[in-house]
Amino acid sequence: MIDRLNLPSSLKTRDADVLVRRATLDDLQAIIELLSDDPISSGRGDVANDEDRPAYAAALTRIIHDPGNELLVVNRDEAIVGTLQLTIIPGMARRGSTRLLVEAVRVASAARSSGIGSALMRWVVERAAIDLEAALVQLTSDAAREDAHRFYRRLGFVDSHVGFKYQVTLPASAAW
Amino acid sequence: MIDRLNLPSSLKTRDADVLVRRATLDDLQAIIELLSDDPISSGRGDVANDEDRPAYAAALTRIIHDPGNELLVVNRDEAIVGTLQLTIIPGMARRGSTRLLVEAVRVASAARSSGIGSALMRWVVERAAIDLEAALVQLTSDAAREDAHRFYRRLGFVDSHVGFKYQVTLPASAAW
Repeated sequence: MIDRLNLPSSLKTRDADVLVRRATLDDLQAIIELLSDDPISSGRGDVANDEDRPAYAAALTRIIHDPGNELLVVNRDEAIVGTLQLTIIPGMARRGSTRLLVEAVRVASAARSSGIGSALMRWVVERAAIDLEAALVQLTSDAAREDAHRFYRRLGFVDSHVGFKYQVTLPASAAW
Repeated sequence: MIDRLNLPSSLKTRDADVLVRRATLDDLQAIIELLSDDPISSGRGDVANDEDRPAYAAALTRIIHDPGNELLVVNRDEAIVGTLQLTIIPGMARRGSTRLLVEAVRVASAARSSGIGSALMRWVVERAAIDLEAALVQLTSDAAREDAHRFYRRLGFVDSHVGFKYQVTLPASAAW
């Protein structure tokens, strides 16, 4: 939990007001389903299998207890229609700038094109980054997500960097 | 400081053994100089100006006290010839995988092509990531750093993502 984030917060979208708030363990199933509701995530193994539930629960517990991380969910009426993770990162580069990293942005397929994603990302750059005194907001997006790239460019993000990933083979005892 | 990192650690390079260890406030000037010893960083304002020293000192203090961040320096004999920052990030995606983010990789211009960078990055993916049970190591590299991209690919990193940045205009009172 990132203490300094001013939450919950109500956001206006074209269709309705939505509420962005901190995720709790009660949101576990809804978040697992949001992750699997995306072809690229499901291709990486996020397919909402029952056997993966303990690993997701452990991860959510770690995020909730981490002072530099926040998992957010977006409620529309009673349903959870979006999620993203924020990580606050102190840094030396750019004259000691603090960065805000955005990961795992997902909007439920049934709620896409309703303005929820842009309301949420605008809240990140216009409100959360200011509250956290973060001079830079950064994220990476899979090269295949061309619609997402247009979306981020429209919001004022600049695709100045190449994002590299390295898959680590962990010893079996370390796997959750 | 990330407790679970096994440091200091001795690394073999082609020319000599080097020592990777946690940065302290005594390393401030050396780190500021390393950041400025790079055309892309200096183009973003990291030019080792005396007036920026308090901002860098505050940033280094924040990193040292942050349980999810570690600033590393590489010593060859008495000189500091490299630096990088690690951030450990719990996450839901990829079945609850923890990620290790690498930022601000710099090797002193006088020490480049000596194998220090690859020894350091191999230590990150083969040792640090295992110690931290991180299934994924990720970084972004400025699109202009083509040599760096070849370097990361040779180490086994895959450039599967696009890295987006958004520059935030902070209120004057929040600037350090």
